[in-house]
Amino acid sequence: MALELTLILGSPYAWRVQLALEHKELPYTTRVLSMSAGELRSQEHLARSPRGKVPLLTDGDFIISESIAILAYLERRSPERPLFGVTAEETGTIWRHVSEYTAYVDEAVEAFILPVYFDRVAEEAERVRHAIATLTVELATYDRLFRTSEYLAGPTLTAADFVVFPHVQSVLRAASKPAANTLELPFLPLATKHPALAAWLERIARMPGYERAYPQNWRAALT
Amino acid sequence: MALELTLILGSPYAWRVQLALEHKELPYTTRVLSMSAGELRSQEHLARSPRGKVPLLTDGDFIISESIAILAYLERRSPERPLFGVTAEETGTIWRHVSEYTAYVDEAVEAFILPVYFDRVAEEAERVRHAIATLTVELATYDRLFRTSEYLAGPTLTAADFVVFPHVQSVLRAASKPAANTLELPFLPLATKHPALAAWLERIARMPGYERAYPQNWRAALT
Repeated sequence: MALELTLILGSPYAWRVQLALEHKELPYTTRVLSMSAGELRSQEHLARSPRGKVPLLTDGDFIISESIAILAYLERRSPERPLFGVTAEETGTIWRHVSEYTAYVDEAVEAFILPVYFDRVAEEAERVRHAIATLTVELATYDRLFRTSEYLAGPTLTAADFVVFPHVQSVLRAASKPAANTLELPFLPLATKHPALAAWLERIARMPGYERAYPQNWRAALT
Repeated sequence: MALELTLILGSPYAWRVQLALEHKELPYTTRVLSMSAGELRSQEHLARSPRGKVPLLTDGDFIISESIAILAYLERRSPERPLFGVTAEETGTIWRHVSEYTAYVDEAVEAFILPVYFDRVAEEAERVRHAIATLTVELATYDRLFRTSEYLAGPTLTAADFVVFPHVQSVLRAASKPAANTLELPFLPLATKHPALAAWLERIARMPGYERAYPQNWRAALT
C-alpha cells in the first residue's frame, strides 16, 4: 500500500520520518500543508489528527501521527533495514537516546528556534537565554559521545540519529538567521567547537536518500 | 539473568516499569534510593546513570535508564505477553499514546504534583493554574476514549496504559493532600466527573501483580 506523509515544510519532526523512510528504502509521497493558511486547523486535517499535528502518515486506511510513533510503526510494518537495532541491548540503547532527547533537549531546541524564526528573540529573551544554556551543555555532551561512537547508539545509523539530527540542523539554521545575530552562542562555530558532532552531521548527510528528505524550503532559501 | 530495578519510592516513572515487569511475569528485585539523602547524586549512581536519574534497570552487565526505553528493552528481551502489540497498527497506536502523553500531558502532571508535594503551591500559583487547566482538558479526553475502549490502545492492556496510569494516580494522590485544599480541581471527584476514566483505573488495579508494584510509601501513608 502507498505511504503518504503529511507535513509542513521545514518541520524537524517530519524530517525524522522522511529520513527513516529513506533509510528503509520505502516509497512514499508527501502532502504539504501550510500552517499560515490554517491548514493544520482544517476540518479535513483535524478529522485525521485531532490535535492538528504533523507529521501524519497514512498507509492505506491506517492513519498515525507523532513522529516517534510513526518510526515504531514503520519498524514493525517493514522490519528490513532496522531502525531500532537487532538485540535487546541495541533496542534499549536506541530508545534511551530517543527518550533523553525528548526529555532533556527538545524543549530547549524549540525555545531557541521558534523565537528566532518568528522574530520574538527580544520578547522572549529570558527563555531564549535559558535554552541556549541548555543547548550549550547538551551539544557538548553529544560531541563527547561522537568522539568514540560513529552514530548515537553505536556503529550503525538508527532511529536515535533520525530523531536528533533534524533538530541539531534546525538549531544551526536558526543560528544563521539575522534574528540570532545579537545572541552569544557558545557552541558555534560547530566545526571548531564540536568537531565530532560536526563530523556526525556530515556522515548522515552522505546517507542514500538524504537529498530527497532534505526540507524543500531550506534548499530554496540557499539558492 | 536477574533484573534489578533501582528507583525512588512513589516515582510514577518507576511504577511504569514495575507494572510492565508484573505484566510480563518477570522476576525482579528493587533497590530503593533516597533522593533526600542525595543518593541520586552519589558517585556510584552517577556512574550508572550519568544524569542521576531513576528508574534504572540492570540486567546482568547491561544498564539502562529512561522508563520508556526500559519498556522497549524488556519487550525485545522477553517478547512473551507483549507490551507493544502484535500488528504494526497496534504497535503504532500504542506508541502514539505514549508519545502524546509525553508531549502534551506529562509536563502538566509534574507542574501540578511537585508543587503540591513540596508545598510550593502559593509560590508557583500561575504554573499550577496552567497545569490544572491542561489536566482538565486531557483527563476529559481520556475519559471520552474509555467510553468506547477498555484500555488506551484497544481491548488489551499495553505499554500505553502503563505509561499513563501511574501519572493519573499521582495527580489523584496529590489532589488529596492538604496543600491542594485551596485548589479548584474541575476533574474531581473523578468517579462522577469522569466515570469511564475511573473505571479504567479500577480495571488496571485488578491486574495480577498490581499489589506488588504498588508504591510502598503510598501504602504506608494509607494505613
